[in-house]
Amino acid sequence: MTPHRPALHGNSAPTASGPRSIAKPYLVFLGDAAGAAEAKTGIGVHEWAGADCLAEWRTGTIVTLGLPAMRPGEARAAGARSLLIGVSPVGGALPDGWIPHLLDALEAGLDIVSGLHQRLSDHPVIGAAARRLGRVLHDVRHADRAFTVATGRKRAGKRVLTVGTDCALGKKYTALAVTRALRGRGIDADFRATGQTGIMIAGEGVAIDAVVADFIAGAAESLSPAAPPGHWDVIEGQGALFHPAYAGVTLGLLHGSQPDALILCHDPRRRTTNWYPDYPVPGVEEAMAAYLPLARRTNPRARFVGISLNTGGMAEADAVQAAQALAPLGLPVCDPLRFGLEAVVDRLLA
Amino acid sequence: MTPHRPALHGNSAPTASGPRSIAKPYLVFLGDAAGAAEAKTGIGVHEWAGADCLAEWRTGTIVTLGLPAMRPGEARAAGARSLLIGVSPVGGALPDGWIPHLLDALEAGLDIVSGLHQRLSDHPVIGAAARRLGRVLHDVRHADRAFTVATGRKRAGKRVLTVGTDCALGKKYTALAVTRALRGRGIDADFRATGQTGIMIAGEGVAIDAVVADFIAGAAESLSPAAPPGHWDVIEGQGALFHPAYAGVTLGLLHGSQPDALILCHDPRRRTTNWYPDYPVPGVEEAMAAYLPLARRTNPRARFVGISLNTGGMAEADAVQAAQALAPLGLPVCDPLRFGLEAVVDRLLA
Repeated sequence: MTPHRPALHGNSAPTASGPRSIAKPYLVFLGDAAGAAEAKTGIGVHEWAGADCLAEWRTGTIVTLGLPAMRPGEARAAGARSLLIGVSPVGGALPDGWIPHLLDALEAGLDIVSGLHQRLSDHPVIGAAARRLGRVLHDVRHADRAFTVATGRKRAGKRVLTVGTDCALGKKYTALAVTRALRGRGIDADFRATGQTGIMIAGEGVAIDAVVADFIAGAAESLSPAAPPGHWDVIEGQGALFHPAYAGVTLGLLHGSQPDALILCHDPRRRTTNWYPDYPVPGVEEAMAAYLPLARRTNPRARFVGISLNTGGMAEADAVQAAQALAPLGLPVCDPLRFGLEAVVDRLLA
Repeated sequence: MTPHRPALHGNSAPTASGPRSIAKPYLVFLGDAAGAAEAKTGIGVHEWAGADCLAEWRTGTIVTLGLPAMRPGEARAAGARSLLIGVSPVGGALPDGWIPHLLDALEAGLDIVSGLHQRLSDHPVIGAAARRLGRVLHDVRHADRAFTVATGRKRAGKRVLTVGTDCALGKKYTALAVTRALRGRGIDADFRATGQTGIMIAGEGVAIDAVVADFIAGAAESLSPAAPPGHWDVIEGQGALFHPAYAGVTLGLLHGSQPDALILCHDPRRRTTNWYPDYPVPGVEEAMAAYLPLARRTNPRARFVGISLNTGGMAEADAVQAAQALAPLGLPVCDPLRFGLEAVVDRLLA
């Protein structure tokens, strides 16, 4: 393992000396997306950071966020600072057809925010143009700096972490909703992003799944640094403890986050792990029983404060029944989208 | 998380298209090491892969492995294929004074095997010389290829994984001893290295702590691929489930290894985690209770087959007592160095 000295390892040459800071507001690039699934990133950023989305740039006709349509020059003149790539190209790789568009954005004075797997900064044309023009390329799917090994030391301030029975069932959404609710009560709270869309929403964060193994917990510690005692970090969970591929990410993030509170996210309809049909989704009680002792390793005060259900698409009565079925566990049960989560926030603050 | 398609991500440009294969035998570089601690790597490789250590090259007078003393040209002529850096430089960085020695080795026709944190392949002088001469630089502390996301699918063959209550208490040693014992019984067994010294011993392996988070379990799956039903992979564990910095590595390796058998490694004298004095070492029973359900996620047949104690330095009577204290757990208890581990291997094969 990496020896316990604060050596800066974990990535090849870090590209920034400090945490990522993305210049807003955004011109959201939607390309010629054929449907909402392709435009999930842009839709998500617009939903949670709408005030940061100044305009959209469509080259097609299907998907729109309802924002003013602008090209880069016009958007820059209107105050935009970055082009946010709000679409995932089919197949995942940067389409050649986008290159002129990205160059236009750079030439117009915009930075670029990308969640693509390949680093734009490594792209021979885009990378070179950005360096020539002094523009910043934010490859948010990649860790942007070196991290140190976790210290295990307790940090001041409070932390809540969303954890799940699987991926893709509301950990980010719940964390954003909790942050919004806390701020609505006048409480000093920050959303701590660990995935690409979250980072685009927050303008900063750590792509925790892109960090080298030895440094996951250390990166998590950096993500929610020491804060005043009344401050809440609301940390976006990643993966799941039961996930055959990603559980290591989940545990490193859990330990480094040293959360005082946990919210269990679950989809009551889901029987098997997405993409892993041989792996049943654990029940809520089983999941909490697994997470809690591990959480208490780095924070003996850790406790669950609520359950966040994803009931999207269920009939109202079924959603209510799913929530009531969990009542015996003695925790507030919510669906942040359908029922709001004030009861969970109450328990959090109790 | 990385989408579930077999895209090759996880590292910047992979340097090899297949698994690492280190050319042996070795000329072991001991530099001017002042003591055994500095030369731990060389000593370990010599102990476990003595037949692969042809000669040693000392520039000092204190540490020797008792091998014939040779310089690179002579070693090459005698059949050596790689220079193995068997010493850790004080402070961790490549000392300038070594550069001429490494160049000598390259010029003489030797590859270089290094466990240093900095990649020799990135060193302006060493990297350039190696490329010019067509030599291979094995930076074993770094992952050398891209990995895919774990599939969670069960692989043919059997696997045993050493797990621990902390780091640095015998997981590697135990795995090597088990491999040796299995082969001694005529069983087809392979040691699967996950750390730098193990990789140097085996000539291949995966530096699991240097893999990007999303791919830890996937790298573990690659490390012990499908094998004939009677074959045993003996996998070197890393980290510990209770370790505030490395537990994520441990869990990803555990899941991807899908071990049929686990051996719990423990130092009966250790009260707190090395380097983390606020973190008590768990008891053996507590540790096994935590590891087993997680192991069973990817292999429902997982079971503990023994406990491997590190009693080095203890009086014989105390060591025996420490082992007897664990007898109620119903598992064979050994110290591979002091007592041998045949009883554990018996249980493994039962």
